Amino acid sequence: MSEASLPTHAKDNPNVSADGAPSKNALKKAQKEAEKAAKKEAAKKADAEKRAAQQSQASEDTAMDKYGDLPDDKVQITHLKKLSEEDVNKEVTVITRIHNSRSQSAKLAFLMLRQQGKTIQAVVAASGDAVSKQMVKWSTGVNVNSFVRVTGLVKKPDPPVASASISDLELHVTKIYLIAQAAETIPMQVKDAERPPPAVEQEGQVDAEGAPIVTLKTRLDNRVIDLQTECNQAIFTISSAVEGLFEEYMRKSGSRKFNTPKLLGAATEGGSGVFEVNNYFGKSGFLAQSPQLHKQMLIAGDCESVFEIGPVFRAENSNTHRHMTEFTGLDFELVFDHHYHEVLEFAEKLIVFIVQELGARYKDEIAVVHKYFPRAGDFRIKDGKALRLKYFDGIQILKDAGVDTTEQDNLVTDLTTAQEKRLGQLIREKYDTDFYVLDEFPMSVRPFYTKKHPTDPRLSNSYDFFMRGEEIMSGAQRVNEAAELEAAMRGKGLDPNADGFSDYVNAFRQGCRPHAGGGLGLNRIVMFFLGLDNVRQATPFPRDPQRLRP
Amino acid sequence: MSEASLPTHAKDNPNVSADGAPSKNALKKAQKEAEKAAKKEAAKKADAEKRAAQQSQASEDTAMDKYGDLPDDKVQITHLKKLSEEDVNKEVTVITRIHNSRSQSAKLAFLMLRQQGKTIQAVVAASGDAVSKQMVKWSTGVNVNSFVRVTGLVKKPDPPVASASISDLELHVTKIYLIAQAAETIPMQVKDAERPPPAVEQEGQVDAEGAPIVTLKTRLDNRVIDLQTECNQAIFTISSAVEGLFEEYMRKSGSRKFNTPKLLGAATEGGSGVFEVNNYFGKSGFLAQSPQLHKQMLIAGDCESVFEIGPVFRAENSNTHRHMTEFTGLDFELVFDHHYHEVLEFAEKLIVFIVQELGARYKDEIAVVHKYFPRAGDFRIKDGKALRLKYFDGIQILKDAGVDTTEQDNLVTDLTTAQEKRLGQLIREKYDTDFYVLDEFPMSVRPFYTKKHPTDPRLSNSYDFFMRGEEIMSGAQRVNEAAELEAAMRGKGLDPNADGFSDYVNAFRQGCRPHAGGGLGLNRIVMFFLGLDNVRQATPFPRDPQRLRP
Repeated sequence: MSEASLPTHAKDNPNVSADGAPSKNALKKAQKEAEKAAKKEAAKKADAEKRAAQQSQASEDTAMDKYGDLPDDKVQITHLKKLSEEDVNKEVTVITRIHNSRSQSAKLAFLMLRQQGKTIQAVVAASGDAVSKQMVKWSTGVNVNSFVRVTGLVKKPDPPVASASISDLELHVTKIYLIAQAAETIPMQVKDAERPPPAVEQEGQVDAEGAPIVTLKTRLDNRVIDLQTECNQAIFTISSAVEGLFEEYMRKSGSRKFNTPKLLGAATEGGSGVFEVNNYFGKSGFLAQSPQLHKQMLIAGDCESVFEIGPVFRAENSNTHRHMTEFTGLDFELVFDHHYHEVLEFAEKLIVFIVQELGARYKDEIAVVHKYFPRAGDFRIKDGKALRLKYFDGIQILKDAGVDTTEQDNLVTDLTTAQEKRLGQLIREKYDTDFYVLDEFPMSVRPFYTKKHPTDPRLSNSYDFFMRGEEIMSGAQRVNEAAELEAAMRGKGLDPNADGFSDYVNAFRQGCRPHAGGGLGLNRIVMFFLGLDNVRQATPFPRDPQRLRP
Repeated sequence: MSEASLPTHAKDNPNVSADGAPSKNALKKAQKEAEKAAKKEAAKKADAEKRAAQQSQASEDTAMDKYGDLPDDKVQITHLKKLSEEDVNKEVTVITRIHNSRSQSAKLAFLMLRQQGKTIQAVVAASGDAVSKQMVKWSTGVNVNSFVRVTGLVKKPDPPVASASISDLELHVTKIYLIAQAAETIPMQVKDAERPPPAVEQEGQVDAEGAPIVTLKTRLDNRVIDLQTECNQAIFTISSAVEGLFEEYMRKSGSRKFNTPKLLGAATEGGSGVFEVNNYFGKSGFLAQSPQLHKQMLIAGDCESVFEIGPVFRAENSNTHRHMTEFTGLDFELVFDHHYHEVLEFAEKLIVFIVQELGARYKDEIAVVHKYFPRAGDFRIKDGKALRLKYFDGIQILKDAGVDTTEQDNLVTDLTTAQEKRLGQLIREKYDTDFYVLDEFPMSVRPFYTKKHPTDPRLSNSYDFFMRGEEIMSGAQRVNEAAELEAAMRGKGLDPNADGFSDYVNAFRQGCRPHAGGGLGLNRIVMFFLGLDNVRQATPFPRDPQRLRP
């Protein structure tokens, strides 16, 4: 206790009563001050001890300021993916995770550093005053997956480091500081997530070497770790690119981007597949199953060519590899001058553009995905042109291959998923292409807003797009006259005067140009282009009837 | 009745009974056939009469094939906005609406044609065999707002046509065909919607000349017609451009676009403002109030720099000029190397880029909006740089101007809307700028994920962006360590282990780099940049507590 802890000169102290005894308040205050002083004293002592320890350590540790807590400096930071041969013998600083670490001896450790899936080996070797044994020890003590800031000399390892994705360079560490510590145990190792999921979803499987095979469910449950893999980093670079290329194509054509409302006052596209919002300020609210009606209203509003990228909600209890309850729709709608095939051709060229530009601009990312999904990179469009067949010509191809198409012949149902896939195989064999279009679908399997074929009453001016035999887009010319639309709605058992429909139908009473469009599923394009197994692999945080997290 | 109407050879007819009398079925069939035949006969007669009438008319009408129903040909179509002096004396074909029409005499009519808000005068003048009186009459009989395909010679009118937006050109019509007829009466005239809404919303108002002043409510109720105005066409070109410029800036920086889920398993950002989804396959579902938690999880998943453009849902009963229940969020989040001001500067330059490029690339559209909203085009950023002030320096400016800031001094509330606007005026006067940033907001008025100021416990590393004194963005450095985040959540009365939070908090247990970001409101940027009165004017189909349609 220091002398400051009690009032010593009572007379000079206003907190002391006339009789020299301290008042209650003064006692309280004194007590507080005493406690404060005691704390201060203890802190001083601890500090002194720490400094003494540090000094004693420092006397041995010549590199004390070269590792540990991050200093408050502002060195130039390099990205791992930007390192090249040109950096050899130069000192660089990177911010990376520790992918794993291995202590070779008290004087030598190897770290694998990882940034956005790319890995590089770092060597921490005690040498003279520059790198101490303590620094070597500290660097292997950092938990796996933690973020560190590493400064080092770039060297060319001989032989190359086979286990690193940047195998022809390594870092000889001169400084290493902790940026963010990962917990000692994390629910899944990134290195385990680097390998493809098992063919059959079953927890607890191990491979020939005893390493765990992580199921898709575990990966998605721990998506933040899963996203850190080299493969997922590449997949989502490509996903971002698909959106960008769609937008680039649309904007170049003079189209404008719009955001139509997702909150609707009525379930307009069928009641069973729609999510209802609980009490929208005393009214019923629903989530849009597509921007269909609103993008057509924009066309009726003289927008001429519009596109949208946004969420699409489907309350369907479909638990398949390609269905989700929420996905990203790439929608477009435009007027045409003479015939809806103007729009169909525009859309075909859109897909060709996306596929070709992905191939040209994202070679590296496709190569990374190819390591895990062997079909990545083999997506084929013959002569850079879509193959366009009439729907019933597609049926004929199936028939010729011995597939039963009775239901399709009778206009009862659309192609089944199995038939679509089979047709995809047959077309790949026959026409050497993974992208094809079926045109002139039967009217009976299309929605009410689809324009009838001008001469054949069974058919409609509508089309689907397929990649690797699975649907990525549905589109059509739309009815653009109110009377025709009302008749079509009544024919499908819908009431044109119902809430939500009347605004839509009225849009065409005010004059509307003939138009056509389509809606693509972003996640499906990415999935089929890369040959992934499941649409969830192409979705950062997928939603399905079983999954509403993370 | 034709002879086909009854079975004449009973013997040969399987529908006739042995006694020669027709069976019941046969009678029914015969009756049907008789009816069919009668109809056919009537149709034949009508057809013959029509043809006769046409022939008699044709004998006078030398231009019969130059107007009326659209022929099945494929002439080259030009867009009205592409017409220029170079087209003078050339024949062009356009697809436009009839904005209005005026019959001058039996031989002369004037049509105002409109495409995407642009108007041009068309002259239909009977002359020799080329244009008949019948054609002149027909063209003025087409309902206003109908779509027509017009072929005509481009001429230079003298004097220019003041009432047309393309005043220095006109079309001398040689052909005119109907593409889509508008109803005879539509709920609102586009020409009435061309004038600004009244200052006070009250139906039935007329201007000095007796023309109706259409309220914002009526416009929004009839948004499809409203969108056809020149002003709205320009507003939504600019809105589309703002999104495009945001995306351009983000992609150039190397950022990737993501789509985070809008369906969430828990109400994570406060219960009162969240929409609940009715029965998500037996679970509770909620609509995302922002992509905040998921974009941070993407950062924890090594995405480093992400952006998103998507709907944001707010179940707040705010009925103001700048609040909606659904709006388009422009969100970004990125890691930084040393200090969150790296991100703040990045975001400031983003806004400067958007504003400057709008000014450079969309002069024409801004000029159009200026005709209706006089502040459009005067948005000012001094020296092309954001003005950055500390929050309490902003408070001081208000204080110096005599504004009571007691609540702000006591860290009780954020700036009120009135204070924000006042500060905007004061800053415009003092610093000659419409764009400024307040940095270092009090921690007490920011959400739990905000990073504390490193030295002043009252403050935080957070910022708001303002255009014309109204908030367009809120952002901050975020807490990137689990323990710190848990403490912050508990401090705000939230449970870090609650559903929806645990995935988020766990993301930071696995190591996460320091990062910062922000969320912009697209509709607000458009509104304030153009000086519109109401955010609904910058939203194609706005949603608020009162409005869920069209």
